Amino acid sequence: MADPRFYDNRGPFALGALAAKLGAALSDGADPQALVNDVAAIGEAGLGDICFAETRRFANMLGDRTPSALIVSRAVAAEIGIGSVPHLIHPSPAQAFADTCRAFYPEAGRAVGPVGGAYVDPTAKLGEGVVIETGAVVGPGAEIGANTRLAANAFIGRGVCIGRDSYIGPSASVIYALLGDRVWANAGVRIGTDGFGFASGAGGHLKVPQLGRVIVQDDVEIGANSCIDRGALGDTVIGEGAKIDNLVQVAHNCQIGRRAILVAQVGLAGSVTVGDWSVLGGQVGVADHVVIGAQVRLAARSGVMKAIPAPGDYGGVPAQPIAGWRREMIAVRRLGKEVKRRDE
Amino acid sequence: MADPRFYDNRGPFALGALAAKLGAALSDGADPQALVNDVAAIGEAGLGDICFAETRRFANMLGDRTPSALIVSRAVAAEIGIGSVPHLIHPSPAQAFADTCRAFYPEAGRAVGPVGGAYVDPTAKLGEGVVIETGAVVGPGAEIGANTRLAANAFIGRGVCIGRDSYIGPSASVIYALLGDRVWANAGVRIGTDGFGFASGAGGHLKVPQLGRVIVQDDVEIGANSCIDRGALGDTVIGEGAKIDNLVQVAHNCQIGRRAILVAQVGLAGSVTVGDWSVLGGQVGVADHVVIGAQVRLAARSGVMKAIPAPGDYGGVPAQPIAGWRREMIAVRRLGKEVKRRDE
Amino acid sequence: MADPRFYDNRGPFALGALAAKLGAALSDGADPQALVNDVAAIGEAGLGDICFAETRRFANMLGDRTPSALIVSRAVAAEIGIGSVPHLIHPSPAQAFADTCRAFYPEAGRAVGPVGGAYVDPTAKLGEGVVIETGAVVGPGAEIGANTRLAANAFIGRGVCIGRDSYIGPSASVIYALLGDRVWANAGVRIGTDGFGFASGAGGHLKVPQLGRVIVQDDVEIGANSCIDRGALGDTVIGEGAKIDNLVQVAHNCQIGRRAILVAQVGLAGSVTVGDWSVLGGQVGVADHVVIGAQVRLAARSGVMKAIPAPGDYGGVPAQPIAGWRREMIAVRRLGKEVKRRDE
Repeated sequence: MADPRFYDNRGPFALGALAAKLGAALSDGADPQALVNDVAAIGEAGLGDICFAETRRFANMLGDRTPSALIVSRAVAAEIGIGSVPHLIHPSPAQAFADTCRAFYPEAGRAVGPVGGAYVDPTAKLGEGVVIETGAVVGPGAEIGANTRLAANAFIGRGVCIGRDSYIGPSASVIYALLGDRVWANAGVRIGTDGFGFASGAGGHLKVPQLGRVIVQDDVEIGANSCIDRGALGDTVIGEGAKIDNLVQVAHNCQIGRRAILVAQVGLAGSVTVGDWSVLGGQVGVADHVVIGAQVRLAARSGVMKAIPAPGDYGGVPAQPIAGWRREMIAVRRLGKEVKRRDE
Repeated sequence: MADPRFYDNRGPFALGALAAKLGAALSDGADPQALVNDVAAIGEAGLGDICFAETRRFANMLGDRTPSALIVSRAVAAEIGIGSVPHLIHPSPAQAFADTCRAFYPEAGRAVGPVGGAYVDPTAKLGEGVVIETGAVVGPGAEIGANTRLAANAFIGRGVCIGRDSYIGPSASVIYALLGDRVWANAGVRIGTDGFGFASGAGGHLKVPQLGRVIVQDDVEIGANSCIDRGALGDTVIGEGAKIDNLVQVAHNCQIGRRAILVAQVGLAGSVTVGDWSVLGGQVGVADHVVIGAQVRLAARSGVMKAIPAPGDYGGVPAQPIAGWRREMIAVRRLGKEVKRRDE
Repeated sequence: MADPRFYDNRGPFALGALAAKLGAALSDGADPQALVNDVAAIGEAGLGDICFAETRRFANMLGDRTPSALIVSRAVAAEIGIGSVPHLIHPSPAQAFADTCRAFYPEAGRAVGPVGGAYVDPTAKLGEGVVIETGAVVGPGAEIGANTRLAANAFIGRGVCIGRDSYIGPSASVIYALLGDRVWANAGVRIGTDGFGFASGAGGHLKVPQLGRVIVQDDVEIGANSCIDRGALGDTVIGEGAKIDNLVQVAHNCQIGRRAILVAQVGLAGSVTVGDWSVLGGQVGVADHVVIGAQVRLAARSGVMKAIPAPGDYGGVPAQPIAGWRREMIAVRRLGKEVKRRDE
């Protein structure tokens, strides 16, 4: 399924070996020696493919198709009945499928550029297995951990430290920053840029030199062309396992919690705190110094002007508990219709 | 008019030759041998310039000016009367003027960087007349069609195919993608970046390898720093002649119709469909899997949460037919004023 | 305080010399020979540090700390009383602190990349003290003023002029533009890209060649990944001392006033005018050709559809005087609650 011009398929894998790798159980009667050649979406899977179904509804999309394996939970397998398609039984089919994709295509998203012609400052330190693509530049004193890959035309500034197994995408720039292991920064990401800090007076806006850093903890992903400004005088921190989508703005001194999610085009003003496991929908905006607690879920396009300490679902401008926001949308819609009736 | 430091003027052109090139008719008494030296806006046009007027109102901006030619439709020419300024009669003056600009400045927007010092992988294939500016990198197996230009520091990843007469701007990156002819990607564009796909569980968000592609059909333009994620397992598709402005987010597996327009800072979540000829105003957001039909026009800042199948004008959050949205804005304004009266 | 991997501290400075440099008065009993080693936030300042307090409330954050100096106004100094901490008396403590930071770290934000391996076209002219980092490309006929620094992988197109003491960040691109002195463009900035101009007809959208320029006056700062399109036929102008945050969109032919502020993710459509000293909050959108006067302050996320000539505070969609917007938010909230009561 994956276009071989772009992706190297490391398969085939024997079904039994794959099950062992995933920590999955093989359904009765499935041949552990049978080969699986590729991954596929359930609606397009054919012979040789492995696919997954998280729910019964998805499993029904299989129809008459006969892929070589289907990853499902025990509960869904029981519901749909074990047909002729071999099952891999796993409590989290989506995660097992992600691992399967990684087994088939371990370099997906990474190995896109040629190697050779990079510039590495003589004072930089590179771990074992570091790959630096053409046009990438590594500044003085930078340290790059083992097996990390720097894509074409990426720039790593002076003193920057990056952990193991990380990836910095094409044309991304990382300055004034310490990055952990397995950090994934997509193309055009800007980590460590100047915060928007000025001392304003009658003569104009005097730039306040930004003297802090960005700390990006392990397992963080940052989407294409997103910007993470460094702290003014402290650090901007992106917590472990947080995921940030494309074109997101994180201003200076923000503190993003562990496993928090910022969907595309979110904008955080300076010194915002986002708690662990919170999710900010697309295009959400948060005013400066606002504290959002843990497990807060904000609907797309919400505008947050003051603290949201309690977990739960919120939406609207200004953001409020989501039931209230929905009620207001309904109320305004009724009001508009009343106006129409009255005016007609 | 155009600054010669940046633009090479290929004129002058004789009026008759220019009219022939544009498929325009010359007004009675106009000298086909008269020379035109440059293009200009109608409010600034002088001797030697050619300008255009789409409507009578614009034609009136000519005032006492005496440019060497004015492009107008037959209807507008009749309305304003043929004065001393020679007319080029064309059914679409704006399009004819665009063609005129292209005749005078065929390389406008393209020829900005020096050549030499690029890196082209030995396995890449370059068509005739391909120009690769300094610092650009072309990966293994990439194919670049005739007369395509890659600007300074652009990056073309492994296996990427680009058609004829296309342009990839400075510092743009194109990975996992197939691009057609006459595709124009501005500076900093990110085509083919990772979609935002995770399998979440108690342990965190496990990255789902993104294994698809981006297909960009002929005559597409993509604005500066916009991001087009590749499909998770299928393709993200940008239809023929679609135009995308700056800082737009197109998530994985979106399908953008032919000649659709996405204005700046639009954000589309995953698997959104936008129909042919639809127009999404600036900062519009669309929720995942939503289908927007053909010829739908969405006002700037609309938030689309469910399907809009019928052509027409829409606006608001959630988006509705534009008359309803306007009515609601009026209703809320009245309500605010009532509250003011009551509270005073 | 500032991490020495990233920042070179040019201190220590004697208190008296520093006071003279800042135009500040030293408090009675302060030793002008005492050394100050570093800058710090008031809540973290210790021996050897200098910090500042703009108000009494901030001064109270000092607590038991004994930094080597505190910058305050005469009024605040009188309010809090001169304790054992030496004071630098200055009418604008924030500005004096910014200057202090600059004295300690004059290269903050600038000196991040290695030097060597840049490509400078032989026809380009470089002023004295110009520094060009690795991977940067300077096109034909470009002129770079004295002491300007071009960061790694930056691109300066043909004919571009940049004044003195300016900075172009990593991977930024500047084309079709004239920049003044002390202009600061952060990483990934796109100056001079194509405006979104098409002549649409039944056959599609015909690109109108963009033939203008961008003029960036002195002391402008532009945030990471922001885009400033060049004029279609005239110029896009960013006025002296204007400050633009990250991921901002400025379309073709916009005129931004002197010392105006555009906060992150603002989007301006074509030919918008923003007056001197106006402030547009985060994610504000402005429709094309709208004129916003001087000293207009727009709340975050406002949508501006028509002219705002008078100074003052505005908010909402469509934007209105801020009191009206607040009233409407209250009115809608009440309405939602009434609906809830009625429906229960």
